[in-house]
Amino acid sequence: MNKDIPVISLQRLPVYLNYLKGLPEQEKFVSSKSIADALDMGEVLVRKDLAFTSAVGKPRVGYVTRELIEALEDYLCCNGKRCAVLVGVGALGRAVLSYGGFANYGIEIEGAFDSDPAKAGVEVAGRKICGMQDMADEIKRLGAELAIICVPASRAQEVADALCDCGIKAVLNFAPVLIKVKNGVVVRHIDVAANLAVLSSMI
Amino acid sequence: MNKDIPVISLQRLPVYLNYLKGLPEQEKFVSSKSIADALDMGEVLVRKDLAFTSAVGKPRVGYVTRELIEALEDYLCCNGKRCAVLVGVGALGRAVLSYGGFANYGIEIEGAFDSDPAKAGVEVAGRKICGMQDMADEIKRLGAELAIICVPASRAQEVADALCDCGIKAVLNFAPVLIKVKNGVVVRHIDVAANLAVLSSMI
Repeated sequence: MNKDIPVISLQRLPVYLNYLKGLPEQEKFVSSKSIADALDMGEVLVRKDLAFTSAVGKPRVGYVTRELIEALEDYLCCNGKRCAVLVGVGALGRAVLSYGGFANYGIEIEGAFDSDPAKAGVEVAGRKICGMQDMADEIKRLGAELAIICVPASRAQEVADALCDCGIKAVLNFAPVLIKVKNGVVVRHIDVAANLAVLSSMI
Repeated sequence: MNKDIPVISLQRLPVYLNYLKGLPEQEKFVSSKSIADALDMGEVLVRKDLAFTSAVGKPRVGYVTRELIEALEDYLCCNGKRCAVLVGVGALGRAVLSYGGFANYGIEIEGAFDSDPAKAGVEVAGRKICGMQDMADEIKRLGAELAIICVPASRAQEVADALCDCGIKAVLNFAPVLIKVKNGVVVRHIDVAANLAVLSSMI
């Protein structure tokens, strides 16, 4: 995979993919202009982003819709299988475990951990919750590379440290706090309240 | 409020705020350099972002930490009170309703709606769920300007349309689909699976 894509472009690829998958079947061709118009973006930007994939557009015709979808799915490893684990099975953790959308991107959450002994062994959306003491072994056994942190802010850094020690390479952090990770580990942060605050400041 | 701030700067303000609130009490002063270093950002960028607020840094001293926090809270209307509603009380909707972090930004979710008649009248995190037929009246009664969409992708556009008709000015959309809104309404989209897919593509 071309790792030189800027993150800002990379994070637009799922947006294109979602849009294209929502098009009616009869739309065999799609132009960068029509994508740009639909998504309220610049056409040059769309073309540049899509150039990171293997899709090749033709002048006056555009892309073959199916080929462009496949190229994006390829780029985003949607047809691979990557294992993720989740830490912190509170209300949010439960919601994330119950969410089926990860499979579209070839990702499966196969392990769930919580520090509350009362939750150990309980099943949520088909996965048995394990205690924190089993995390290292389970992550190794599963070969998990992705982790989702759903613990409270006060616990997020220690959980991130433990995940890094277990060899996790990428962390999606829902705790409303910045976490530090080892060099070579990538992090994305979803702060739900901050997103709403940004919206609130825009109106 | 200065509405001319670029969204990209605006969305960094909560990050600064979170960082500053996590500093030990004895750190009375904070420099743009120390903020930049802690957050792995450029110092010039930090200074430019903070210049949108009313905070004034002094050469060689930096900002008074407390003043900078207050300036950011001011800018993000944290001390105001803004009313939000939530549509779709499934697992994710429940998690969002149970989440206490919105109050830090002066936002309160005061109404919750679901199309499932079996949920009408049920209480979640202290709020009674109403049916969709009551949404317009409730939004008017509450004076709500913000809405959070937690319905499945297939229902998201019709819910967005209804919310716009009710006078909602900003929408936070969790459904993994692009929604169109009326001119003047702002939208942010949190696609949890896409975020994980982006991470997965980075490792």
